[in-house]
Amino acid sequence: MTGPDDRPTPHLVVDADLLAANVAAMAGFAAERGLALRPHAKTHKSPDVARLQLDAGAVGLTVATVAEAEVFAAAGCPDLFVAYPLWVDAAKGARLRDLAASATVSVGVDSVEGARALAAQLPGASVLVEVDSGQHRSGVLPTEAGPLAESAARTGLDVRGVFTFPGHSYAPGAPVDVAAAEAAALRTAAGSLAQHGIEPVVVSGGSTPSAAAADADVLTELRPGVYVFGDAQQWELGTVDPAAIALSCVATVVSHAGGNLVLDSGSKALGADRAAWATGYGRLLDHPDARVTQLSEHHAVVAWPDQELPQVGGRLRVVPNHVCNAVNLADELVVVRGGETIGVWPVAARGANT
Amino acid sequence: MTGPDDRPTPHLVVDADLLAANVAAMAGFAAERGLALRPHAKTHKSPDVARLQLDAGAVGLTVATVAEAEVFAAAGCPDLFVAYPLWVDAAKGARLRDLAASATVSVGVDSVEGARALAAQLPGASVLVEVDSGQHRSGVLPTEAGPLAESAARTGLDVRGVFTFPGHSYAPGAPVDVAAAEAAALRTAAGSLAQHGIEPVVVSGGSTPSAAAADADVLTELRPGVYVFGDAQQWELGTVDPAAIALSCVATVVSHAGGNLVLDSGSKALGADRAAWATGYGRLLDHPDARVTQLSEHHAVVAWPDQELPQVGGRLRVVPNHVCNAVNLADELVVVRGGETIGVWPVAARGANT
Repeated sequence: MTGPDDRPTPHLVVDADLLAANVAAMAGFAAERGLALRPHAKTHKSPDVARLQLDAGAVGLTVATVAEAEVFAAAGCPDLFVAYPLWVDAAKGARLRDLAASATVSVGVDSVEGARALAAQLPGASVLVEVDSGQHRSGVLPTEAGPLAESAARTGLDVRGVFTFPGHSYAPGAPVDVAAAEAAALRTAAGSLAQHGIEPVVVSGGSTPSAAAADADVLTELRPGVYVFGDAQQWELGTVDPAAIALSCVATVVSHAGGNLVLDSGSKALGADRAAWATGYGRLLDHPDARVTQLSEHHAVVAWPDQELPQVGGRLRVVPNHVCNAVNLADELVVVRGGETIGVWPVAARGANT
Repeated sequence: MTGPDDRPTPHLVVDADLLAANVAAMAGFAAERGLALRPHAKTHKSPDVARLQLDAGAVGLTVATVAEAEVFAAAGCPDLFVAYPLWVDAAKGARLRDLAASATVSVGVDSVEGARALAAQLPGASVLVEVDSGQHRSGVLPTEAGPLAESAARTGLDVRGVFTFPGHSYAPGAPVDVAAAEAAALRTAAGSLAQHGIEPVVVSGGSTPSAAAADADVLTELRPGVYVFGDAQQWELGTVDPAAIALSCVATVVSHAGGNLVLDSGSKALGADRAAWATGYGRLLDHPDARVTQLSEHHAVVAWPDQELPQVGGRLRVVPNHVCNAVNLADELVVVRGGETIGVWPVAARGANT
C-alpha cells in the first residue's frame, strides 16, 4: 500500500525488473521476426532507459523533435530518426547540422515544401516519407509516397524509405485490423517508391498496440514507445498485462470528504489524457476495480470498490492513462527493485518540444 | 500570422498589455466589492506575474502545494494560502516550518486526521476549513464545517474561516447558479463555525467563471486564477472575451497532408485537457471559426474554415483549453508588447507538485 520511498508525493516510480523484462520482450520479439527495433524515446525521455534499449539490440532511437534528438545524441545514441515532418528553418537547420556531426540522423517528410526547406539547410539529408495508414494526422496517401519521394530526391535528399504511425490502433479491438491497414499502406507506399525509381531500404511502422500483429513480410522496422512502461490505456486495450506495468505515480490519500477517496495525483502529475473509451483518468495498480472518476490539477477522485476507504495519509500507486504525457510532467523517475530505491533517473528530455 | 519572435515553436507567448489589463480589471472588481483578492498562482507559476498581482493590491497568493508556496515565498510573497487539504508528514512539516519563518502561511483542512497531522508538525498553524459547494471533490459538507473547525481548534490550530472551490462553475451556463451555490455553502459553513464558537474571519471562494457573480455579502475573499491569461475554456464558457486572452502557444504549420492543417502544438505543449462541452482541443486566437479536432503529443489537427490553408512553415497562435496545465508544461513565458519581445519569464513553479 505504501510507496517504496518516503519522498513527497506525487512522484513517478519505475520498477527496474519489470522495465528490464519489457525491454527484453520487445527486443526478443523484433529479433525473432527479423525486424529492426527503433524504440520511440518520447515515452521515457530518459538516457538511462535508452541505454537499456540500445544494449538489448535496438538499432537506434526514434524521437519526435530535434530537441529530443539533441538530448539523446549528447547521451551517446549514435542513430536517431526524427519521426516527424519537421519544418526546418535556418535555426533548426543549424541544430540539425550540429546533430549530424555526432550521430546518424534521418527525418520524416510529408510535403514538397518541407523537403525543400530541409534540403536547403541540410543537403543530402536522409529522409523517410511519412504515410497515412488511417490515423489521418500527418503523412501522405500511400500512392502519393512515390511522387513525393521523387520530388524529395530531386532536391538532393537521400530518400531511404517510408514510415507510418498507426495511431488509430489506440482503440478497443483495433490493433489487429490496424496492423493490417499499416502493412497495406506501407506495402503500397514502398511499391510507389519503387515505381518512381527509389528502392526503399527502410519500411517502418509499429505502435505498441499494433506491434504484436506487425507484418514482417512488409515492415523492416518497429518503432513502439509505450511498451517499456505500459499505461492504463494499454491495460484497458488489453495490449499490456497490468502485471507488466513498470511505471506508476505514487499518490497520497488526502481526503475522505463526502465519502470520496481523494488522491494528490492530479492532471499536473498524471496528465489530462482520457480517450473516449477509457473507464477513467487512470487506474490503481493494486486495485483493478477502483476507477478515477474525476481529475483536476491536484486531485484525483476515486470510486473505491469497498466499503472501507484506504486511510487518509496512506499511499497508493496510480497508473497514468498515457504514460508519455505523465513522464513529460516529471523531472525524474525513481527506480525501485524489490521495494528498495536503486536510483533516480533524470527525465532529461522533459519539455524538449522544439 | 507569424509569431512575434523567431524562437523555435511551440512556445508560450504572453501579451504584457492584456495581462496588465486583466490583472487590473480583477483587482478593480474585487476592490469595488470590498473583497480581498488572493489570486491562485497555480495558473501562472510565475513570480513576475505574482508581482503584478501583489502590486495591484492582492492580499497574498493562493497556491495548491507546499512546493508552490516555497517558490513564491522565496520570491518575496509575504502571505500564502495553501488551498488544499494537505497531508502533513514529518518531511512536509519541516518544510512548512521553514516556510512559516519567511511568510504568513495558512493551510486548508477537511478532515480531523489531516488537522491532527498538521497540528503535530506545526502547532498553532492557521487553517481554513474546506467546504464542498457542489463540485464533490474535497471539502466537508457546509453543516459539518463547525464540528470540524471545533476539532481542529482543539488540536491547537488557529481556525480562521472557511473556503470552497466552486469548480463546477466550469460548465456552460453554470457560473451564476454556481456562484449562488457557493455563497449558500459558505454562508452555512460560516454559520456552522459560529455555532461552534469560532467566528470566521475569512470566507473565501471564487473561481474565474464564478467571480463576476460572487456574493460580497457572504464572501470576504476571491481566489480566481485563470483570469490573468484566459484560455479556450473560458472563451467557450463566455466568461473571458477572446480579445482579452493574454496567453497563446505559437505553433508552426508542419503538414497539409490529406487536406489537413497540422500544427506542431500537441498535448505536450497545450495539455490534453478537453471538457465534455469543449468544441475541440484549443482554439486559434486569430481564427475563431477554426477547430482543433485531433491532438496528439506533437500534432494538432485543425479543421480550417476556408478553402485555402495557411502555408506550411507559417505560424499561428493557439489558445490552450486549460491554461494552468499548458503553463505547467513550459519552462518560460515569452513576454511581448506590440510585436516586440520584452522579456522571458521563468515558470519558476513548473512541476512543483509536492
